Amino acid sequence: MVRVKLFGAGGYGGIGLIELLIRHPEASLAALVDVQGVGQRLSDMWPYLRGYCDEVIIASDSNEAKAVEADVVFCATPDGVGQTAAPAEVAAGRKVIDYSGDYRFNSVELYREYATRIGRDPEHKAPDLLKESVYGLTELHRNEISTARIVGNPGCFAVSCICGLWPAVKTGLVELEGICCDCKTGVSGAGKKPVSGFHFPERYDNSNAYRLTGHQHVMEIERELSDLAGSTVHVTFTPQVIPMVRGILSTLYGRLPEGITHARVLEAYRDTFAAEPFLDVRDFTESVGTSDVRGSNRLIVTVATDERTGTFRVISHVDNLVKGQAGSALQNMNVMFGLPETMGLDQPPQHP
Amino acid sequence: MVRVKLFGAGGYGGIGLIELLIRHPEASLAALVDVQGVGQRLSDMWPYLRGYCDEVIIASDSNEAKAVEADVVFCATPDGVGQTAAPAEVAAGRKVIDYSGDYRFNSVELYREYATRIGRDPEHKAPDLLKESVYGLTELHRNEISTARIVGNPGCFAVSCICGLWPAVKTGLVELEGICCDCKTGVSGAGKKPVSGFHFPERYDNSNAYRLTGHQHVMEIERELSDLAGSTVHVTFTPQVIPMVRGILSTLYGRLPEGITHARVLEAYRDTFAAEPFLDVRDFTESVGTSDVRGSNRLIVTVATDERTGTFRVISHVDNLVKGQAGSALQNMNVMFGLPETMGLDQPPQHP
Amino acid sequence: MVRVKLFGAGGYGGIGLIELLIRHPEASLAALVDVQGVGQRLSDMWPYLRGYCDEVIIASDSNEAKAVEADVVFCATPDGVGQTAAPAEVAAGRKVIDYSGDYRFNSVELYREYATRIGRDPEHKAPDLLKESVYGLTELHRNEISTARIVGNPGCFAVSCICGLWPAVKTGLVELEGICCDCKTGVSGAGKKPVSGFHFPERYDNSNAYRLTGHQHVMEIERELSDLAGSTVHVTFTPQVIPMVRGILSTLYGRLPEGITHARVLEAYRDTFAAEPFLDVRDFTESVGTSDVRGSNRLIVTVATDERTGTFRVISHVDNLVKGQAGSALQNMNVMFGLPETMGLDQPPQHP
Amino acid sequence: MVRVKLFGAGGYGGIGLIELLIRHPEASLAALVDVQGVGQRLSDMWPYLRGYCDEVIIASDSNEAKAVEADVVFCATPDGVGQTAAPAEVAAGRKVIDYSGDYRFNSVELYREYATRIGRDPEHKAPDLLKESVYGLTELHRNEISTARIVGNPGCFAVSCICGLWPAVKTGLVELEGICCDCKTGVSGAGKKPVSGFHFPERYDNSNAYRLTGHQHVMEIERELSDLAGSTVHVTFTPQVIPMVRGILSTLYGRLPEGITHARVLEAYRDTFAAEPFLDVRDFTESVGTSDVRGSNRLIVTVATDERTGTFRVISHVDNLVKGQAGSALQNMNVMFGLPETMGLDQPPQHP
Repeated sequence: MVRVKLFGAGGYGGIGLIELLIRHPEASLAALVDVQGVGQRLSDMWPYLRGYCDEVIIASDSNEAKAVEADVVFCATPDGVGQTAAPAEVAAGRKVIDYSGDYRFNSVELYREYATRIGRDPEHKAPDLLKESVYGLTELHRNEISTARIVGNPGCFAVSCICGLWPAVKTGLVELEGICCDCKTGVSGAGKKPVSGFHFPERYDNSNAYRLTGHQHVMEIERELSDLAGSTVHVTFTPQVIPMVRGILSTLYGRLPEGITHARVLEAYRDTFAAEPFLDVRDFTESVGTSDVRGSNRLIVTVATDERTGTFRVISHVDNLVKGQAGSALQNMNVMFGLPETMGLDQPPQHP
Repeated sequence: MVRVKLFGAGGYGGIGLIELLIRHPEASLAALVDVQGVGQRLSDMWPYLRGYCDEVIIASDSNEAKAVEADVVFCATPDGVGQTAAPAEVAAGRKVIDYSGDYRFNSVELYREYATRIGRDPEHKAPDLLKESVYGLTELHRNEISTARIVGNPGCFAVSCICGLWPAVKTGLVELEGICCDCKTGVSGAGKKPVSGFHFPERYDNSNAYRLTGHQHVMEIERELSDLAGSTVHVTFTPQVIPMVRGILSTLYGRLPEGITHARVLEAYRDTFAAEPFLDVRDFTESVGTSDVRGSNRLIVTVATDERTGTFRVISHVDNLVKGQAGSALQNMNVMFGLPETMGLDQPPQHP
Repeated sequence: MVRVKLFGAGGYGGIGLIELLIRHPEASLAALVDVQGVGQRLSDMWPYLRGYCDEVIIASDSNEAKAVEADVVFCATPDGVGQTAAPAEVAAGRKVIDYSGDYRFNSVELYREYATRIGRDPEHKAPDLLKESVYGLTELHRNEISTARIVGNPGCFAVSCICGLWPAVKTGLVELEGICCDCKTGVSGAGKKPVSGFHFPERYDNSNAYRLTGHQHVMEIERELSDLAGSTVHVTFTPQVIPMVRGILSTLYGRLPEGITHARVLEAYRDTFAAEPFLDVRDFTESVGTSDVRGSNRLIVTVATDERTGTFRVISHVDNLVKGQAGSALQNMNVMFGLPETMGLDQPPQHP
Repeated sequence: MVRVKLFGAGGYGGIGLIELLIRHPEASLAALVDVQGVGQRLSDMWPYLRGYCDEVIIASDSNEAKAVEADVVFCATPDGVGQTAAPAEVAAGRKVIDYSGDYRFNSVELYREYATRIGRDPEHKAPDLLKESVYGLTELHRNEISTARIVGNPGCFAVSCICGLWPAVKTGLVELEGICCDCKTGVSGAGKKPVSGFHFPERYDNSNAYRLTGHQHVMEIERELSDLAGSTVHVTFTPQVIPMVRGILSTLYGRLPEGITHARVLEAYRDTFAAEPFLDVRDFTESVGTSDVRGSNRLIVTVATDERTGTFRVISHVDNLVKGQAGSALQNMNVMFGLPETMGLDQPPQHP
């Protein structure tokens, strides 16, 4: 039984993991840690969990939190928390999975660029641990994850874009220059904190692009794509919010190299994803929507090459809170502890 | 292992049951039967079920459907189907749980009144079976359900109103005359068929009352409340649709008898629900919303007596598709087969 | 031309009035006053108003605000602002229309009770002005409003309940004891400030009752109904929020006196509302929803007496931001300045 | 006074025009014509219009409809209706504005290609009239529209894409090859007919691309852009539906030619749009959403060039029912009758 200590229990990323852990036959919750709601039962903060998770939240910096016996620590926390908390956890022999950007780049130089972009201290607090961290897109880094002590769980937009482009970038089915990622996300990706733009009356019939000066997720997308391509890839990334709660719809454009047909692209995606339990491919004549992955750890890519204009196009569908966050995190835990990768992730969601 | 044959597999009531059955350790799907989508895999109709339920839908009137080996038959079908289909199933030794009004009244007279109200043929097609049918509100009819061959699963509004009024009606905490049930439902209660009033642009910012000339659910509410009270109870029932998908919020009003205090009402509800795994009570100082029961088989009642005006008031929260439909049906199956009542219903939903 | 000075320009109540004023042929905006956004153009805060209202917001306590030449002052502000601001305005010869509870009660005793209920200082800051204030439900107080110097615009719930009950209470068509007001409101009624309960992911599929210990609007409802009935009326009031933006659906219950028929109730409403340009009556066989009044100053009452159970029932539909707020305010202005009551309120809204 | 005869009065395109006409000081409704709801008052079908438009709908093929005295005929009708109805109207001396694709292409060859694409009879029924038809994007064809007898109002997606790309394509600020139009639309664009994909429970948390094999609007986009560029332009067009009612958000990508800077693109848009009353430009540091144009005839373009990757990017915001449909149609009517172009379109919408 894998004993789990969870930092950031009360956020969407925390409760998303708890929902999954309760169904997981080989994991158990050891402690709920947070900075908000300390002393409350989690089910007082989130009544839908009453009877399922009535544990009391303990303070991040408490001795109680330090003394918890656990095998794995999830940091479902914003940037900056994991780099402070993780070193002691790893030193104590626990594996760590961090949701933020703290461990998505295993060099201080890349981290510095990332931190600058989001307006944080560019100096990483745990540079040694950073160096051994593994990027937690399970499908691309399964082997390293299986032995990693520290995993940087990917950003939700990054999951959708990297999985959507991977087979094409790796096998030369798209020109590496000029890739554009047009990404639409539901509001839950921004977390539970109420702000003006997500106030119900301001959002119920409103869509907009944001952070057009540069969203931080672009860095991990470019790094992964560059690794896959074997040469530098830059992408244009347009994050957009729509009046939806769960789901990301990413439409990915590029130039189709001379001689590459739709059939060939489709075949490449099918071949690459054939062995992947959570990645699915559809041809563009099939109808797919984000509700087909809502609540699930599945990612569906529609191959929709436009041969008439010589445009490469694939559309990626994912639930930002599952495969885009807590689901990927649990998938990584399974790999790190030698469990079947789909364990706890093999139940259907509810519809509608 | 209880083998399940499901009529009406492709509707919201059918897929709602399938979602639950897949998590149930002692039940297995034997056959998906429907009149629509015959020959298709259910997961082609509902892609979110791919990998979870890829069985092919067979025709209701096919020999294949008749030959299915099953222990229980769910009729997740509209009024009229179960009364034709159930007799043969029961004769073949299978227990039947019907979602519609076909078996909610165990007399031909009451059925006649019900059928007239909804504009259907007043003569029941299986009067003998009707007589032995049991009303499937598990909490009130557990014993009879445990040995029943045919159960009429309750209407979603009825679940919310009966559970909300039961303790008060039974123990004289509300005047029996003048009870008003103000019920607001999400749209999924009307099923998957697109109609003008539930077209997204017509519904996204629109609420309305409907069937003010008389909704059929009022009959089962009055029958059950009368049985509990030991004398005839009539209620005013106002069904309303609001721009929500899952959930019923029923606010139940009546006159507080002389000398009855809020404290006494609250205590009665707590006592009555203490042993019920799916019924929960809150005082009116606690905040509750339908999202607290969304996706779950739980029903939460808030006791909100208004002593100032002498008004009895409780507010009932339920997910119309779970405790209001498929969840109750599965709960009944558990009781009918001697399984723990909460089996397959003990996992947390997803939020938000 | 009536020159308008507007306090609280940047809130929903402020912009709602501005939208209407721009269409009004006999009114002009003299000044936008607020405590937030001072120095900004209103259209920078609300870009949809660019080209329609590019005036700069000035500070409430500035000399500039004091020196504005105006004929009428709207306080589209929360409780407490109007009682401080209004005396000087009235002294300067301007008429004042206040949106809050500050001038809804023309006695210090009633105000004290109201203020206590909402946790504010029970001593009114302008007791003399309070005494001459007129309650701004135009249909009931047209004559006094026409000569008033200070009008307390009614609460949105109060508009829906008082108009819905007025003809019945006045002419003895409902028992005065035991009236219950079941009110469902869209989120915009709570204003533009983001809070957790109105965060899009927490509200999109969630309904709940709130302030069950007592909502402040009940006082003005009871005062008006008592005046109409000629004897004390108490009502049970249940405010509820549903995932809608604009609109209030109030279902109003009571006991039908012996011998009163549905036909008689319907006729009374038709008679009473016949001369009212903004009040409309429908029989319960007609379908009505809040979207039928969305964006308009109209209020529609459906008479839905339940003779079977002896229950009086009417359903009131109103847009909380128009007839429930800015529309009523403008209607009052028209009356106060001798303009046609419907001026600026006679254009159709947009649908869907 | 321009007398208006309206075909298709009962659809979203019809009522959208009526809302605007009622505010228009120089236009009057002469007749409401439709195939549905004949004999009903429009306000019985759409109760929000009661008191604003109580005219009775007359049958399209009736003598009454033929005899109507009118100056202009709007065909707010699907493909195929206008090509049958318009010739007689024009022959009778009336100007015609058609909403569908019937008159968007002034050659039988182009029409044939268009009709084939949408699965209709490729032979136009009024080829002579087709030849003199003018494409109704007012900003680009003002002069021809002013004297036209027949105008083909543009598609909503086309308005968003053509206005978004026009200044760049015309002045060489984007490479003509490789332009991608990523378009997200609210549901109202599909009309009032209920279908499964727009059933509230299926749409409230669901986004998807559709018609990936080719949407018919691409043809008019390519024709207009080619005319502007002076050479053939092909674009990749991705239509997507999101859970919104009003609004289109189109993100338009292309390659930035060598040496073209963001500043230069921004300046070109500002110059081109300077004299246009309904076209607005913003820099990418300013926040814009579709709610900023909701209910209005305004179109806002955000210039968001990505110099780092050499990508041209602009984002176009429009209300599909106003500037994308009825608003443009009225704007054309104004031009055709020598009225100020903004007449009847110069009032603010309601928010939220």
